Amino acid sequence: TSAARIALIKGDGIGIDVAEAAMEAARTACRHVGAPALELDEIQAGAGYFERTGQDIEPGGEERAGRADAIFLGAIGLPAIRHADGTEISPHLRLRDRYGLYAGIRPVRAYPNAPQRLADPRAAGLDLIILRESTEGLFYSAAAHGRAQVIGDDEVRETLRITRATTEKLHRFAFRLAEKRRQRGKRARLTCVDKANVFTSMAFFRKIFDEVAADHPQTQIGYNYVDAQALDLVRRPWEFDILVMENMFGDILSDLAGGLVGGMGMAACAEIGDTTGLFQPAHGSAPDIMGQDKANPLAAILSAALMLDYLAEKTGTATYARAALAIEDAVEAGFAANRLRPMEFGGDMGTWAVTQAV
Amino acid sequence: TSAARIALIKGDGIGIDVAEAAMEAARTACRHVGAPALELDEIQAGAGYFERTGQDIEPGGEERAGRADAIFLGAIGLPAIRHADGTEISPHLRLRDRYGLYAGIRPVRAYPNAPQRLADPRAAGLDLIILRESTEGLFYSAAAHGRAQVIGDDEVRETLRITRATTEKLHRFAFRLAEKRRQRGKRARLTCVDKANVFTSMAFFRKIFDEVAADHPQTQIGYNYVDAQALDLVRRPWEFDILVMENMFGDILSDLAGGLVGGMGMAACAEIGDTTGLFQPAHGSAPDIMGQDKANPLAAILSAALMLDYLAEKTGTATYARAALAIEDAVEAGFAANRLRPMEFGGDMGTWAVTQAV
Ligand SMILES: CC(C)[C@H](C(=O)O)[C@@H](O)C(=O)O
Ligand SMILES: CC(C)[C@H](C(=O)O)[C@@H](O)C(=O)O
Repeated sequence: TSAARIALIKGDGIGIDVAEAAMEAARTACRHVGAPALELDEIQAGAGYFERTGQDIEPGGEERAGRADAIFLGAIGLPAIRHADGTEISPHLRLRDRYGLYAGIRPVRAYPNAPQRLADPRAAGLDLIILRESTEGLFYSAAAHGRAQVIGDDEVRETLRITRATTEKLHRFAFRLAEKRRQRGKRARLTCVDKANVFTSMAFFRKIFDEVAADHPQTQIGYNYVDAQALDLVRRPWEFDILVMENMFGDILSDLAGGLVGGMGMAACAEIGDTTGLFQPAHGSAPDIMGQDKANPLAAILSAALMLDYLAEKTGTATYARAALAIEDAVEAGFAANRLRPMEFGGDMGTWAVTQAV
Repeated sequence: TSAARIALIKGDGIGIDVAEAAMEAARTACRHVGAPALELDEIQAGAGYFERTGQDIEPGGEERAGRADAIFLGAIGLPAIRHADGTEISPHLRLRDRYGLYAGIRPVRAYPNAPQRLADPRAAGLDLIILRESTEGLFYSAAAHGRAQVIGDDEVRETLRITRATTEKLHRFAFRLAEKRRQRGKRARLTCVDKANVFTSMAFFRKIFDEVAADHPQTQIGYNYVDAQALDLVRRPWEFDILVMENMFGDILSDLAGGLVGGMGMAACAEIGDTTGLFQPAHGSAPDIMGQDKANPLAAILSAALMLDYLAEKTGTATYARAALAIEDAVEAGFAANRLRPMEFGGDMGTWAVTQAV
């Protein structure tokens, strides 16, 4: 049982606030269950750093991030600081690309006393996972500067890329996720979300899904077109368990689904590759409220729990899994007892009060 | 005041049912206000036609469609009938491409007594328009067979294409739409929905929005990233009036928004180009309920109203605008008096009963 090393990128805006909150929660949870303390290697990166230095991450930072057992990221980007083509500062996209962080896991769970957007009472039981491929799809063009084809001031083209290699890994990951979920006694139907009616690339994505499904006859599967899935997420989201999809689709649908259960302040996210994983709240840097103790740290804290769970498997230190569970239970129990009342949900608790309460 | 000629493509599944219902409603409305009867030119097309003939539209059908004053389409596609690459039969995509039907208008309106998905009572006042560019964006690859780049069984690439020419037309259309809406006494803030933080093409889309906006200082504008917009559509949709966006984004968000106000059975759609327009309910062909008098015809009937409005401007026959209004008022009044109870919403009225009630 050795201590795990975490590359910590706090980033911009409230990224800094919630990253600190998440590390505090992880530290406390580890101490509580007797897990080894995490070793942090802090790396400067983000739009603020770019403004000061002209680089979006400190020299050698990308390599150091890759050498840690996991990467934890607060949030990156400031709307006022952009590249010449109008896009924002996103070293995060390069990390996804470089370390092949293909499996973007975005759990969506309704907690008691957290806001419900849907009128139907069944929404109170919402508990699904969006699995967003995170290295290719439409983001292929965006992962590295210069991949977009700019034709004077007349036209821009970008490439959506679906490879067999990544798609196979993604779908295998999805079926393993379904298997784990079933073992925890939960319903675990896996839905392939695509636009196979229109795009050859998406029919290819679905074909590979079917190939991988043939190796997992015990898992119940389904299909949905992405537009119909968006509608179904507002009409009957409680019928879905795990949704696997292309990068851009996953970006949109995970925010949509996150919105159903309160908003981005609860949206945890893990991005897993073959050799490392990156963990981050799925929300942005919200510079308007940074440093004011207003941000809801729960997305970051729940992302830290996902990270601890990953570390347990990766380093073989089982106590990390118990630390993860301690955090998840604390959030669950905190909401149930109405002891978690983040300002984001109209409550009276700032970033640190929520963190302490957890 | 001459009679307008309509190219009628009923298509597949319930497309046939609802197209007939819509033509019946249009006929009645025209008679009622003294507008000239529509002349119909019926064109065979769709997945069923493809299965019988190997063609997705009858010979010369595409040309005849383009010569009419407008095209009315029921719904096309049957999941069991596909091209060799796995995609479905969609001559509709070719019509959009060939006739440059760039402006896809999808109104989203809450009617009294129709289902509300959101718990917040403000959702009862929902009244927004999604303007979906409908010829390029990611669908550029899909509009014509062979544009996707297939690399053996290893990879498929598609192209997202944003041109200045089309984007300028789209945004000008959006500002005109806002202007018209304001003149009818409604709030008309125009939001550019994109992913300019990540994609060069989307930053280009937004840049052109800003250029066009400079010519319309009287219109209030806003920006939103597409993922945040998906979230905002479940959190505070009542704050939006007109949303303009790329093709694929519009496909997803218009279904999502449609879901908020009951489902696709209310989702009317107009696709306008420089020389003609295509009108269709945005829902699919639902072959499982075809010919059973179960489909909700209101999306098709409201699409016919959009068509009559377009014909009034195009042919200079003002009575068509009154026919359009007659339909819209009938739907509004029908819901208000609970005289419209489609089966889709758990009501007792089939396709024809709803049509007669309107
Ligand atoms: C900030 C941006 C690069 C990022 C993305 O689109 O992937 C964000 O929206 C997310 O969902 O993590
Ligand atoms: C059937 C399909 C080609 C179509 C589209 O994606 O454009 C449909 O989903 C729509 O929204 O009109």
